[in-house]
Amino acid sequence: MYRTKTCGELRAANIGETVVLSGWVQKSRELGGMTFVDLRDRYGITQLVFDENQNAALCEEAKKLGREFVIQIEGKVVERSSKNPKMDTGDIEIIVSKLTVLNTSEIPPFTIQDDTDGGDDLRMKYRYLDLRRQCVRKNLELRHKMAFEVRRYLDEHGFLEVETPVLIGSTPEGARDFVVPSRMNPGQFYALPQSPQTLKQLLMVAGFDRYFQIVKCFRDEDLRADRQPEFTQIDCEMSFVEQEDIITLFEGMAKHLFKTIRNIDIKEAFPRMTWHDAMKYYGSDKPDLRFDMKFVELMDVLKGYGFGVFDNAEYIGGICAKGAATYTRKQLDQLTEFVKRPQIGAKGMVYARVEADGNVKSSVDKFYSQDVLQKMKAAFGAEAGDLILILSGDDTMKTRKQLCELRLEVANQLGLRDKDKFACLWVVDFPMYEWSEEEGRLMAMHHPFTSPKPEDVPLLDTDPASVRANAYDMVINGVEVGGGSIRIHDSQLQAKIFKILGFTPEKAQEQFGFLMNAFKYGAPPHGGLAYGLDRWVSLFAGLDSIRDCIAFPKNNSGRDVMLDAPSVIDQKQLDELFLEVKDIEK
Amino acid sequence: MYRTKTCGELRAANIGETVVLSGWVQKSRELGGMTFVDLRDRYGITQLVFDENQNAALCEEAKKLGREFVIQIEGKVVERSSKNPKMDTGDIEIIVSKLTVLNTSEIPPFTIQDDTDGGDDLRMKYRYLDLRRQCVRKNLELRHKMAFEVRRYLDEHGFLEVETPVLIGSTPEGARDFVVPSRMNPGQFYALPQSPQTLKQLLMVAGFDRYFQIVKCFRDEDLRADRQPEFTQIDCEMSFVEQEDIITLFEGMAKHLFKTIRNIDIKEAFPRMTWHDAMKYYGSDKPDLRFDMKFVELMDVLKGYGFGVFDNAEYIGGICAKGAATYTRKQLDQLTEFVKRPQIGAKGMVYARVEADGNVKSSVDKFYSQDVLQKMKAAFGAEAGDLILILSGDDTMKTRKQLCELRLEVANQLGLRDKDKFACLWVVDFPMYEWSEEEGRLMAMHHPFTSPKPEDVPLLDTDPASVRANAYDMVINGVEVGGGSIRIHDSQLQAKIFKILGFTPEKAQEQFGFLMNAFKYGAPPHGGLAYGLDRWVSLFAGLDSIRDCIAFPKNNSGRDVMLDAPSVIDQKQLDELFLEVKDIEK
Repeated sequence: MYRTKTCGELRAANIGETVVLSGWVQKSRELGGMTFVDLRDRYGITQLVFDENQNAALCEEAKKLGREFVIQIEGKVVERSSKNPKMDTGDIEIIVSKLTVLNTSEIPPFTIQDDTDGGDDLRMKYRYLDLRRQCVRKNLELRHKMAFEVRRYLDEHGFLEVETPVLIGSTPEGARDFVVPSRMNPGQFYALPQSPQTLKQLLMVAGFDRYFQIVKCFRDEDLRADRQPEFTQIDCEMSFVEQEDIITLFEGMAKHLFKTIRNIDIKEAFPRMTWHDAMKYYGSDKPDLRFDMKFVELMDVLKGYGFGVFDNAEYIGGICAKGAATYTRKQLDQLTEFVKRPQIGAKGMVYARVEADGNVKSSVDKFYSQDVLQKMKAAFGAEAGDLILILSGDDTMKTRKQLCELRLEVANQLGLRDKDKFACLWVVDFPMYEWSEEEGRLMAMHHPFTSPKPEDVPLLDTDPASVRANAYDMVINGVEVGGGSIRIHDSQLQAKIFKILGFTPEKAQEQFGFLMNAFKYGAPPHGGLAYGLDRWVSLFAGLDSIRDCIAFPKNNSGRDVMLDAPSVIDQKQLDELFLEVKDIEK
Repeated sequence: MYRTKTCGELRAANIGETVVLSGWVQKSRELGGMTFVDLRDRYGITQLVFDENQNAALCEEAKKLGREFVIQIEGKVVERSSKNPKMDTGDIEIIVSKLTVLNTSEIPPFTIQDDTDGGDDLRMKYRYLDLRRQCVRKNLELRHKMAFEVRRYLDEHGFLEVETPVLIGSTPEGARDFVVPSRMNPGQFYALPQSPQTLKQLLMVAGFDRYFQIVKCFRDEDLRADRQPEFTQIDCEMSFVEQEDIITLFEGMAKHLFKTIRNIDIKEAFPRMTWHDAMKYYGSDKPDLRFDMKFVELMDVLKGYGFGVFDNAEYIGGICAKGAATYTRKQLDQLTEFVKRPQIGAKGMVYARVEADGNVKSSVDKFYSQDVLQKMKAAFGAEAGDLILILSGDDTMKTRKQLCELRLEVANQLGLRDKDKFACLWVVDFPMYEWSEEEGRLMAMHHPFTSPKPEDVPLLDTDPASVRANAYDMVINGVEVGGGSIRIHDSQLQAKIFKILGFTPEKAQEQFGFLMNAFKYGAPPHGGLAYGLDRWVSLFAGLDSIRDCIAFPKNNSGRDVMLDAPSVIDQKQLDELFLEVKDIEK
């Protein structure tokens, strides 16, 4: 037995007890013949005292302890003379009578503290030391708790967690698959699932009624801060349901998580917004509603006054930043530079301040009379002290997306994106399809199994691009935490959708034959949804990147720098798989 | 809303209610102007009644319903005239007033009943129909419940579930890895984990203290009934613990599962047996203790009487089957054939019956006097009516393993392996190493991170083959449900173990450098254990194969015959991975 107590649990009530503790040396300091050591474990920090007057030899040993040494001590709990109210164990300290060094430590490459001196690369290489920092560990504790509460909620609502296989078949529709060569089936490959979509639909055909799984999914895509090659989904599916049933149940789950994880009671229903409105008013299918700044369209107001940029625009729209008329010329120039960055791609920005007297002063005053500017002010409902920012362009959707970026940036600058405030939203009525320039065809916006709205089914033949889907996303603070749809359960309708997506019947049969066959044997109406666990944990933990809530994440090249993976493998392994690596230099 | 109730919940108390149900047509029959339909969903079966006299048109529609059609009905709950006490809903039936066919079904390729007419191959191809059978679905319900209770127990005991990566590095020690080519790192491969062993040890170095994960693991091995290329482990690790701490906590978990899943209260501690005794008395490191038939060694008793087979044997041992003297000559010949099968490999079998008068009648009477046979009888403690079966050979361990197979076979025949009886056991004190003929070196019996018993450490230099490990297995009914060990936390001891296993320091650094480096920064004493979830569920569900508790299992060639995976992939995919498939015909 290495300990009788942890380093986080001793309180004034324990004074007088003899205890055994084990942990890591956080730091030590000497002061007037005493050596104080902060002993750390997952549960907290406890102060140890070695007294030269009481036990000089032991105190000598204590002085040799380095940072991150692993030690075991026995000692007596005493009251501290100077209590530390910031520490849970701040009322007590331990007068040590016995010390055992369980393991030494080299000097760590960075300090094991919340405000560490280690850079990103170093921390990832020594991730096992980075994880010792409380601020990192608590993200993973939150993740554990959140997954547990998801399971509790879904179990209570009759869902069965069913494990679907990781080694499945490759389906080129969608993102790129990771593949796994099969030794027993030479020349053939498994694929790792991008999601268990088809398998969960088969479980519905199998009559499982309510399925969920917290499951690793894989996508071989180029990476960025909120993407990892492997990520975790809370994957759910239900039978005999309509969109409303799903929204009700999973809004309930979200509220359960807010309550149990963040202690936030959300009484009212989440607002709902059509995809069309989300694009029109926020330029995004995942608007951040922690703040207002709804887009105002200005084509009627500002066109035809000789300002060529606006006169030739297909879209003119703006936002009103309350109280931001104090922005300096320099700040406004920086915002202009921001929207002109190639990632955003606007040509320029027009601004207008509402002055104390109500007059509007704009960057395009030479084209517009105060009268027109007042009409614009009215369109925004702007008041003295407000700042109006306007973008225009020849592509409505592109300009809206630029305006969305501007809106978020201004909100960041104004401190309107408080990480402890949450704005939840359902975005509904997504289009079934979006046009892919790259592929030269319509692509499924959600996935090819999504059901169209029944009332839009006739449009499939006449105007497929206008068909709306029974699809929905849950958005919190501008992050899409989950999304799903009602599925097609009719094999004829499914065949028609495949055709619109450009699949020949043979190709559809080859790729999804198992699903289409299954649908011949009594598929129930069904639908579901998947949450991104990584994103949701990041949101609750207030993190900027999903990496910080993943124990062992990969970098932007898909490498685990701690394990140094991937790596070359033995020729013997390649031979067994009937594989050759091509000359990469070519 | 597709239903107001499920097909499993209506009782006498609901009589008079109007309900909406949805589900599958299990079967229908016509009887005197009435059509009766059994409607099935996950929750049960409810009898529907269509009455020609009340609604002839509706009854006509009902007659068209085929097996496995998906329908929705509205109707009134009434009392059944002839109640069915075998059904939960047997007190009531529904007089249907409205019928909607939600989906039709082709005739299924086999009957959707517990006693189906479908063979294995057909059922696997149409697994989504197989899963509709109650006897299959309940295994997966049990699996869900068991995983949930594991999580509840471990959460209550302070364990954090941490997800470790699926894309890691390949480690040739152990079984064969599945590998995943990396597009972003051409010529390099990830491997899928055979277990998260090293990662959980890094989490201990990281101070996580108590970790668990229910996690998919992967092994590219040739398959058999209790092996799948992907399987699920309950993987656990703890810091600052000794073997006793781990055994106590996980025995507690086993008891929690027995109680919550099977409603079995196990009060007493699980017995413990050394590996040495398990081999000596049962010829197996996972003895089935639901029945006795302990091995008795007979070298002293039966050697030196002129029976060459025994006189030249290195080992003679037998078992006593209580009351089995009734075995006929034919049955005994079949047992002899059984042990002579190449998979078992015995040369022959000697038997002896204890007759009603106490005399022993054996198959080798011409070599042994009744006096010697009585001594043998005494060695077994055999009584009138018992059957003694004896094997011998020139390799003690091999003969014991043969005797183990015989013991299990006889117990099967005598009905001693009741699936509803459970005998739990810890096997402890495993050897550190076993000799590999194939590799020509000592191999880690558990894995290379297992700690030797402290008292055996000096033997590492002088007689490594005799060193015992701090390793333990939990065995239930002859199935190893889990196993683990105390790990080495000292990098010098770890280096020594690697050396004994034949690793050069360079090779050890290359493969496990990240772990050995981590151990330099204050590794705590730690240990853990992993349970095979598939095996444990099979055991609780009384299944012969783990396949039956896996939703979508693979066959013995590693194929998913439903998905038809693995399969060939596009040349484009291969090109992106810089791979070529060699000519397989060669």
